[in-house]
Amino acid sequence: MSKIQSFGIIGGDKRQLYCGKSMEKDGYRIVYSGFEKICGSFDIDNTPFLTALKECDALILPLPCSRDGKTVNCPLADTPLAVENLKTVIGQKPVFCGMKNKLTFHDECIYDYAEGEAFAVENAVPTGEGAIELAMREYDGTIHGSRCLVTGYGRIGRILSAMLKGLGADVTVSARNERDLAYIRSAGMKAIHSERLAGQFDLIFNTVPHVLFDSRTLAASAVGSVLIDLASMPGGVDHEGAQRLSVPVLHALSLPGKAAPKTSGIIIKNAVYHIIREEGL
Amino acid sequence: MSKIQSFGIIGGDKRQLYCGKSMEKDGYRIVYSGFEKICGSFDIDNTPFLTALKECDALILPLPCSRDGKTVNCPLADTPLAVENLKTVIGQKPVFCGMKNKLTFHDECIYDYAEGEAFAVENAVPTGEGAIELAMREYDGTIHGSRCLVTGYGRIGRILSAMLKGLGADVTVSARNERDLAYIRSAGMKAIHSERLAGQFDLIFNTVPHVLFDSRTLAASAVGSVLIDLASMPGGVDHEGAQRLSVPVLHALSLPGKAAPKTSGIIIKNAVYHIIREEGL
Amino acid sequence: MSKIQSFGIIGGDKRQLYCGKSMEKDGYRIVYSGFEKICGSFDIDNTPFLTALKECDALILPLPCSRDGKTVNCPLADTPLAVENLKTVIGQKPVFCGMKNKLTFHDECIYDYAEGEAFAVENAVPTGEGAIELAMREYDGTIHGSRCLVTGYGRIGRILSAMLKGLGADVTVSARNERDLAYIRSAGMKAIHSERLAGQFDLIFNTVPHVLFDSRTLAASAVGSVLIDLASMPGGVDHEGAQRLSVPVLHALSLPGKAAPKTSGIIIKNAVYHIIREEGL
Amino acid sequence: MSKIQSFGIIGGDKRQLYCGKSMEKDGYRIVYSGFEKICGSFDIDNTPFLTALKECDALILPLPCSRDGKTVNCPLADTPLAVENLKTVIGQKPVFCGMKNKLTFHDECIYDYAEGEAFAVENAVPTGEGAIELAMREYDGTIHGSRCLVTGYGRIGRILSAMLKGLGADVTVSARNERDLAYIRSAGMKAIHSERLAGQFDLIFNTVPHVLFDSRTLAASAVGSVLIDLASMPGGVDHEGAQRLSVPVLHALSLPGKAAPKTSGIIIKNAVYHIIREEGL
Repeated sequence: MSKIQSFGIIGGDKRQLYCGKSMEKDGYRIVYSGFEKICGSFDIDNTPFLTALKECDALILPLPCSRDGKTVNCPLADTPLAVENLKTVIGQKPVFCGMKNKLTFHDECIYDYAEGEAFAVENAVPTGEGAIELAMREYDGTIHGSRCLVTGYGRIGRILSAMLKGLGADVTVSARNERDLAYIRSAGMKAIHSERLAGQFDLIFNTVPHVLFDSRTLAASAVGSVLIDLASMPGGVDHEGAQRLSVPVLHALSLPGKAAPKTSGIIIKNAVYHIIREEGL
Repeated sequence: MSKIQSFGIIGGDKRQLYCGKSMEKDGYRIVYSGFEKICGSFDIDNTPFLTALKECDALILPLPCSRDGKTVNCPLADTPLAVENLKTVIGQKPVFCGMKNKLTFHDECIYDYAEGEAFAVENAVPTGEGAIELAMREYDGTIHGSRCLVTGYGRIGRILSAMLKGLGADVTVSARNERDLAYIRSAGMKAIHSERLAGQFDLIFNTVPHVLFDSRTLAASAVGSVLIDLASMPGGVDHEGAQRLSVPVLHALSLPGKAAPKTSGIIIKNAVYHIIREEGL
Repeated sequence: MSKIQSFGIIGGDKRQLYCGKSMEKDGYRIVYSGFEKICGSFDIDNTPFLTALKECDALILPLPCSRDGKTVNCPLADTPLAVENLKTVIGQKPVFCGMKNKLTFHDECIYDYAEGEAFAVENAVPTGEGAIELAMREYDGTIHGSRCLVTGYGRIGRILSAMLKGLGADVTVSARNERDLAYIRSAGMKAIHSERLAGQFDLIFNTVPHVLFDSRTLAASAVGSVLIDLASMPGGVDHEGAQRLSVPVLHALSLPGKAAPKTSGIIIKNAVYHIIREEGL
Repeated sequence: MSKIQSFGIIGGDKRQLYCGKSMEKDGYRIVYSGFEKICGSFDIDNTPFLTALKECDALILPLPCSRDGKTVNCPLADTPLAVENLKTVIGQKPVFCGMKNKLTFHDECIYDYAEGEAFAVENAVPTGEGAIELAMREYDGTIHGSRCLVTGYGRIGRILSAMLKGLGADVTVSARNERDLAYIRSAGMKAIHSERLAGQFDLIFNTVPHVLFDSRTLAASAVGSVLIDLASMPGGVDHEGAQRLSVPVLHALSLPGKAAPKTSGIIIKNAVYHIIREEGL
């Protein structure tokens, strides 16, 4: 059994609140800090940062835990929470955070819940749904019966393409290697080599993190499409080329937190629980 | 071969424009009337009503063709189009419209493209997707893994529940007769009798057009849920009861035209083509 | 609560044994009669007919309960069980049977568990799987990726086509009315009018109980196919025509009992339980 | 364009015949050798080995090409074909074979069509279907609604589990790493760690090639199940332990060739074509 009985949820967005709410249901005592702007609508009390640090057996920081290395990433706080203050508890209690490399100090008691591949796979589900929600909002037809192209068969490509097929779309997926192309066909979808992208599509979802959609590829595959770019900055689309061809491009980032903070929060919770079990905390 | 070579698209919303655009691709000449407010963004010319009536071999009115019996239903027009004017062409050229009973006169040349059951089934697809888009927007978790209740296994219930399952939801469907309950189970979903609605659900989609969700049923099944009511006015939910239990209710009406006007327009086109073939017009 | 505490399972095949076995797990005392040939491998005792009639609170006869009107349908018995003997208990205890019209006498205590549409829907699942098993055995390719035609969108057509799609086949379904054609398309399959059957298919599953596949239709759609006829006798295929075109035809009858007696037995059990609840027995 | 205009199909089973038949449709001239026993039913002429070697631009040997290193693997031939004879053409024309390491000599003109991972992925489809056919034959219930356990989420586990789900089974998949467990859940199935196998299942499909099912695991998960072992020899089941617990075990090997030789033959054809394109033959 774990010795941890209380967690401090320090900063972050709605994901962290849902993470904490779900932990409360599991029987933990939760203290929230850095949520002044939202605590009314979520029915929680906001605790001052230093009190929270002191009172809890363990801390959970957001994903990413910091953007500038100096303050905790806390968009819902009224005042910034200085990363410096965390040092007072480092070594004494476990600190769980996302992207721990954003902190300027290291310690074996700092655990990164976002570094495993399972975490990334799980987040591909809210990413995929967020992309579909976006497509539904922007595209004037139904997903059902639409011609969809998904580029890349990594985590997001694999899960998103299955969802589109589940809604009745006519799905084509591109990949670079024969193995993935075989898996795509075995899943009942059309497979196309990434270097020979061409065709007529109503919706294109790009998951490849380099400029796959240069002018030539846009002309061969994207005219008349809505293109949703899921690749992290700077994305996978030549925006000038797209404009010239009148292809609307939506660059969708950080979908899990925006589209499904509840699911994302529970994914964080499960990742923290997994570390606790594995490390015997 | 049909003798009709040109259609007048008279009034309506984006559905009618997509219907006309798609007919243009099929080789017909199309004249649009009643679209002053939108013709810029859709790259069409707006033709005066009387000219349009005269110039075309056939007319397509919207769904419903009229709301007040006096003017054509034309929310995108600058000036109203009087139903009276249609009489000049009645008997001379076919008029296709939705809900022809809204007109005050009758003629065997007036065809209702919306009266067949196939039309209703086809529109259940954009309705289902519109409901899912709404659920994605309002619910903080993913559809995947969520506990969904769909009440009723008519057209919308049947198609919507399959879509939810295709996205990975845990789907329960209610119905009144044993036959439908057997079909629901055969589709791999949980079946529950409409008179014994109870359980814990994240999302409830009501398709039953009478007050199924009275206070008692709300208390037994909807606490903690988001309820999306797809039943036509006045809907299937006791709104006071829902408010008392803090159950958010979204009454979603006319989803096909809102969520997927392109698909809806093509459904109208296909229904018109079907009448032309069947009637030998 | 029901007053029935014991059932006599009288005649039939493995379905009835699985029905009884499952009832035993539910806490009922079960007496089996008419199973001499199999009782060893099923670990049951065979009780003489008259004893069984006397000892039980209710009786369950097979489906059909009789083929000749004189003896109970009991292919696994060593000696025939005379229907006449049933008369001694009629009126005193409920008798559940399949196709009660096969009995020469009537009584309000005789219930037909097979007459509801739900029963037929539930049996479409083992029928569909039996058809797929047959197709897998006879066809040298995989169902995945094969071009399948299912004729008819009634109970079996609807459930079988969904299973074929679930395995990754390219499914076309034929139907006569526009409503069903719309449902077929909404389920992501190709729809074709029953009167215009044509195309190239690897596998054809006929569910229509009249000769849909005459010489002309066979020539237009079945050359090079394996045809599995699921229609009850005399089936839906012109066998001479099929032979002339070298189309192998498999007439598959009574699949539920052959392919999945366990599931079929539980369907019978549930139908009996449903009658008990509805009738307050 | 390839310079190859004719292929010699040398030995093997029905897969090779289907491979050749399909190549004929693509416009190649095909010569068959080593098929005396079956050429009647397949409507082909059998050509003497040495003639075949001489007459063709390229040769296709079976999978595996040889079992003993001395003769070509040709179960349908009347007389053995000596591997030695192949040497006369080595270096002059391309030889495509499966498992080329079974030959005692090497040459850069010998290509192994079975060595890529794509080939293995594609064969997982007929393997999965063959396993399902076996399960349908041996299990007295339907796959629909049955509780299935698939051990391992490699190629076969991934494709087989999706098929079982497509048929409506209640699917649990085991895996060792968190990444795969996350993928399994994202596919809407239950995930269980390979080291904690336990539960009640109607059907178990083992794909793990070491003894996962020792006495303890069998007792925890397999009592009352039918176990289908898809792992290559010696398989993944302690057979004595299974017998003690009365768990029927079916060791299914070489399913692609048995269950779907046509599909398997086309997979071979596509792999050969792929080599021809890549190597510029």
